Amino acid sequence: MTGEFDIIARYFAPLSADFEGAFGLKDDAALLTGEFVVTKDVLVEGVHFRAKDPVSAVARKALRVNLSDLAAKGARPIGYFLGCVWPTGVTEEAIAEFAAGLKADQDLFKIALVGGDTTAHRAKGAPFVISVTMFGAKGPAGMIRRSGAQVGDDAYVTGTIGDAGLGLAALAGDLKPAAPHKSFFAERYQLPSPRVSLGGALCGCASAAIDVSDGLIADARHVAEESSVGIEIHAEKIPLSEAARFWLDRQEDREAAVARLASSGDDYEIFFSAPSSRRRSIEMASQLTKTPVARIGTVSRGGGVRLLNGLGKSIATSAGGYDHFQP
Amino acid sequence: MTGEFDIIARYFAPLSADFEGAFGLKDDAALLTGEFVVTKDVLVEGVHFRAKDPVSAVARKALRVNLSDLAAKGARPIGYFLGCVWPTGVTEEAIAEFAAGLKADQDLFKIALVGGDTTAHRAKGAPFVISVTMFGAKGPAGMIRRSGAQVGDDAYVTGTIGDAGLGLAALAGDLKPAAPHKSFFAERYQLPSPRVSLGGALCGCASAAIDVSDGLIADARHVAEESSVGIEIHAEKIPLSEAARFWLDRQEDREAAVARLASSGDDYEIFFSAPSSRRRSIEMASQLTKTPVARIGTVSRGGGVRLLNGLGKSIATSAGGYDHFQP
Repeated sequence: MTGEFDIIARYFAPLSADFEGAFGLKDDAALLTGEFVVTKDVLVEGVHFRAKDPVSAVARKALRVNLSDLAAKGARPIGYFLGCVWPTGVTEEAIAEFAAGLKADQDLFKIALVGGDTTAHRAKGAPFVISVTMFGAKGPAGMIRRSGAQVGDDAYVTGTIGDAGLGLAALAGDLKPAAPHKSFFAERYQLPSPRVSLGGALCGCASAAIDVSDGLIADARHVAEESSVGIEIHAEKIPLSEAARFWLDRQEDREAAVARLASSGDDYEIFFSAPSSRRRSIEMASQLTKTPVARIGTVSRGGGVRLLNGLGKSIATSAGGYDHFQP
Repeated sequence: MTGEFDIIARYFAPLSADFEGAFGLKDDAALLTGEFVVTKDVLVEGVHFRAKDPVSAVARKALRVNLSDLAAKGARPIGYFLGCVWPTGVTEEAIAEFAAGLKADQDLFKIALVGGDTTAHRAKGAPFVISVTMFGAKGPAGMIRRSGAQVGDDAYVTGTIGDAGLGLAALAGDLKPAAPHKSFFAERYQLPSPRVSLGGALCGCASAAIDVSDGLIADARHVAEESSVGIEIHAEKIPLSEAARFWLDRQEDREAAVARLASSGDDYEIFFSAPSSRRRSIEMASQLTKTPVARIGTVSRGGGVRLLNGLGKSIATSAGGYDHFQP
């Protein structure tokens, strides 16, 4: 195995080439100037990804969950700081593959590595940990907050919901979908598609937004809490992929199955609210950025999130959302 | 155990109260505006601290190693992003103690928590990991780089060297110093004193600087490499604590012992270079900030770092510096 400084020079320094203030990763700090929206997400092997997941996909997911946060805040991504704690005995191939994953997504999303810290565990078998602090340029209308939803606003979500949750279940063997569906679900779990373009276009339209990482209902609940409003979501309006619909149509308890899709995590779509006067702008933003957007409900008085069936009755949902401190 | 969101609200949100753009940790991102020097250091249980170390001291060390980086770059610290991966079964007491450690150093160094991510391992026995991304205001004369040392410059170091290395050895039982020395060494390892005030005062005086985390020689070597110069350090001018001198005086091979002190890590002092015309300014900066500064050598032609004895002969040193990828 090559030494730490050679590893940085060979695999990570090239990823910083496009950002002057990174100094080629040859100093202790980086220089940034501007108005930034900054977010930080940590990924842990065995929690946020599986030990078996391809390491290049893990690298990309580490970037994408942060890109998703910036998108929901209406910011244009610029760069990131990377902290890695590699398992003992990590191979140079694995590091090279990880760096290749970063490179692929840097090119795709036009971002640069700006600084970081590369370390390794001493304890055998200790899980790989990746910490990303990502910054983006504040949108012209400011950062889209969780707290701006108003009673009467429409509620929207991008893309489709629940695929990643089915993907995790399929990868764990708890679910046995047909082969093409399985690989679709698995990819949705392993390689989410952050809604970066739409996020930028929402700035000035959306009254509140959050990225869907804990599950649609759990994340909508964060918006409801911070905005001091209630949110009603119509179950049949939640956008589903063909594969998820195929699965749903085969479930005995259809309402429980929809609740499951709306409670499972890792979608990395954007849930947002906007005044009804903005419907046309949102349609245009959706078309321009080629991002599917579905109007799924309304912001109401009161608090919390209600999932409604076709008759307007509440569907029971679990507390929802993964809690790192609960068994 | 309380849930994740309550933990954040109870222990971490209060630490963000003084920074408006942190939004009380109630959103997905923070807002920063300005010219920033940014650094990131990750601490891993079993590598950067011991499982037995008091958790409040671990919290403070996580901040201080980053404060030390900013100090060496001449920046005034402002705030930080915190990523924690707690061990499974962590107690609320431990988290409270950790937050109290953060609070103590936030008050001492006038910094605020601005954002982050709180997660926990699922794997039993997996090591506690702390990732800090810290930012500070760029000094009036810009960031002090590693690359600015010029032939003929003086070489300096703050404080005393080698105490933390002896502390780690003492804590591991490999060294048996007398009780008062042991606790002094241990504290130097567990709770370094970042040279924040002096760092700010060096901006405009120092031609190059780095914080001493890998060991005096290893870090001076980084400056030598990035500045394309050589650095000569006079062994007898390296500042030592009374306790380290007591230890040194009892070593058979005095030169090897000095080399050991200059090669052991975790000092978190600042090594820097400055033109000889700046001697008076540096003396004043040292007095004003009450920070001991020792002139220990010279920047020369050539490359690398030479540790010289009283006769001007090179003392053998190990490669020096901890490498995360070498056994």
